[in-house]
Amino acid sequence: MSGGQALRLSRLVRAAAAVIGSRYLRPGQLQLHRRLALLAGGGLAATLAFPSVLAASKPDWMAEPISGYEGVKGNDIKARMEAMIMQVQADFCRALEQEEADGSVGSEPTKFKVDRWIRKEGGGGITCVMQEGEVFEKAGVNISVVHGHLPPAAVAQMRARGKQMGEGALPFTALGISSVIHPRNPMIPTIHFNYRYFEVQEPNGDCQWWFGGGTDLTPYYLDENDVRHFHGTLKKACDRHNAKLYPKFKAWCDDYFNVTHRGERRGVGGIFFDDFDEPNQEKAFEFVTSCANSVVPSYVPLVKKHKKDGYGYAERQWQLLRRGRYVEFNLIYDRGTKFGLYTPGARYESILMSLPLTARWEYMHAPEPGSKEAKLTEILKNPKDWV
Amino acid sequence: MSGGQALRLSRLVRAAAAVIGSRYLRPGQLQLHRRLALLAGGGLAATLAFPSVLAASKPDWMAEPISGYEGVKGNDIKARMEAMIMQVQADFCRALEQEEADGSVGSEPTKFKVDRWIRKEGGGGITCVMQEGEVFEKAGVNISVVHGHLPPAAVAQMRARGKQMGEGALPFTALGISSVIHPRNPMIPTIHFNYRYFEVQEPNGDCQWWFGGGTDLTPYYLDENDVRHFHGTLKKACDRHNAKLYPKFKAWCDDYFNVTHRGERRGVGGIFFDDFDEPNQEKAFEFVTSCANSVVPSYVPLVKKHKKDGYGYAERQWQLLRRGRYVEFNLIYDRGTKFGLYTPGARYESILMSLPLTARWEYMHAPEPGSKEAKLTEILKNPKDWV
Repeated sequence: MSGGQALRLSRLVRAAAAVIGSRYLRPGQLQLHRRLALLAGGGLAATLAFPSVLAASKPDWMAEPISGYEGVKGNDIKARMEAMIMQVQADFCRALEQEEADGSVGSEPTKFKVDRWIRKEGGGGITCVMQEGEVFEKAGVNISVVHGHLPPAAVAQMRARGKQMGEGALPFTALGISSVIHPRNPMIPTIHFNYRYFEVQEPNGDCQWWFGGGTDLTPYYLDENDVRHFHGTLKKACDRHNAKLYPKFKAWCDDYFNVTHRGERRGVGGIFFDDFDEPNQEKAFEFVTSCANSVVPSYVPLVKKHKKDGYGYAERQWQLLRRGRYVEFNLIYDRGTKFGLYTPGARYESILMSLPLTARWEYMHAPEPGSKEAKLTEILKNPKDWV
Repeated sequence: MSGGQALRLSRLVRAAAAVIGSRYLRPGQLQLHRRLALLAGGGLAATLAFPSVLAASKPDWMAEPISGYEGVKGNDIKARMEAMIMQVQADFCRALEQEEADGSVGSEPTKFKVDRWIRKEGGGGITCVMQEGEVFEKAGVNISVVHGHLPPAAVAQMRARGKQMGEGALPFTALGISSVIHPRNPMIPTIHFNYRYFEVQEPNGDCQWWFGGGTDLTPYYLDENDVRHFHGTLKKACDRHNAKLYPKFKAWCDDYFNVTHRGERRGVGGIFFDDFDEPNQEKAFEFVTSCANSVVPSYVPLVKKHKKDGYGYAERQWQLLRRGRYVEFNLIYDRGTKFGLYTPGARYESILMSLPLTARWEYMHAPEPGSKEAKLTEILKNPKDWV
């Protein structure tokens, strides 16, 4: 069997596993895998006859899941969430590596460096970082699966948010994917997304759970078509579940990503939500999966469109200044960064991978009135609706 | 009368005013002015005979004080503190401009840009910033004089620090000088200092007051002689008042400037103190004045010593990475920055002038074992005594 055949077969096996589990793949991928299965000359039915082969199959992820390949096969929500974010990490990293490969001239294209780490207090993570690529100056896609006891400060923060929580150090599990991509070309926006599941065991035996997450875009120059495509893709992912979600989570996003002291948003928004548990765990998980799967189609077309755009010194300087604002938001206001850094045993390198490779602060910088830079600033001060 | 004569006369008049007020000048300056007085051919007695001339004299500060030239002539502590920090600002800015002028080749040497700003809620400030100089990449020396009512969050923060405070929005005054200097050459350390006076009016008519401040050094490469000179100068300034202060405030500094998530100090320390009110207001003010006046002699010799040192790309990259850590401390942990940014009507440009012109974050960067970079990191993880 040639390497190509083996690859097709492994994909085929995964496709079959996915059909059974209905959870590794998105609809688009499923079609692709069905086509591959036909190309490989076998029907799904034939593969389904070999359950032992299926049990041995390993999805083509960036690393072994923190809970192990077996650990993510269960039907409980934690296993399914972990498998989902593993797949999203792989899809997104591979899509970005493809852009890097297409843009590369001469030398070996830059790839993600994969760090699988174990947290001694429980759990661990898989951090994928690409640095100094042709297209991506710094790109991080991180999974973390953390078990432990909530420190009292974290419980206090959750109570302040309206959660009813028991006393003492409560056992919890948090698992999520989080990513920030800083491209080199100032005409390509920065993207951030994060999807997470949180579960706390109450002293009385009850289990509190919720989802949180969002995807948002931070352009350096405003291309209105880009922003419409981005918001439109997110809206479609939300509308599939409930038409009320996109407007609510769009507004929440504008509200959250606010660099308060400057009176401007970090970027042109997207969606943001927390404490999401409606209408039930199954449907909430489907919604989050749909959002996470919309990352690639919302963003990769913008990379393709702008990666060969021309730019000069002035555009690069503006990009670095805007990255300074990004750092301000992340270090001063972002709840995730704070929660992360204050969690005992936190892996700060994974949390701070969100920071750009370089950033700049000039005293009293203000864009020229009427310039392209001023046009962006105007939108950051007055967010608008895009779809 | 020639320009030179006029300058000497104005200095003479200021010297006489200083002798009367005993508060604009440091001992070294006083000697200089006495010599100038003799050179100008007049004795102090002769000048003292013209009080109307004295009243019209203006110290050679960076701008008019926020409380006006008349407003800082009073004998109360706020007037004296404002006059003291105005003088320290002028001395420090002029000393740095002199280094810039000495290092400049061909073009006009870079000078401080002076912004005098008024805060609509009460008070204002004088922000002096130099950017993209030959010697100093970014240098900020800021005075602020703020009157207003303490927001409840600030009162809560002070109570958490052990202050007994009344209820409601209490009237307060805060005045201080704050400075961060980021030189271009990685062999010159960054310095930060801040000296401030704080006063709160209690509902029962009592007035609570205290001083705070400190000076600390952040080298990119460790020159032990530099650090000994720096700490030695601060120790001398402290010891003049009480030999117990330097060891206490040196330890406090190591404790405060801690980048907790990385387990390393921001730099090699210095002194830091807060809530200082001993043994009385007069003596406490003298101590703070002595510390503030030790900034120039603790730092300017290091600039002179290293400004022509050779360095290359690797040293510059290391400097930018270390500046990333500086940003982390200032935006995540620094109480002054937080207090500033959360104060309504805060002038964020003055608060954030502490950030470097450029900074860098690399994922998982670690210096080579045994390298000069590793030697610095070792000291940051394990602060030591220098004098």
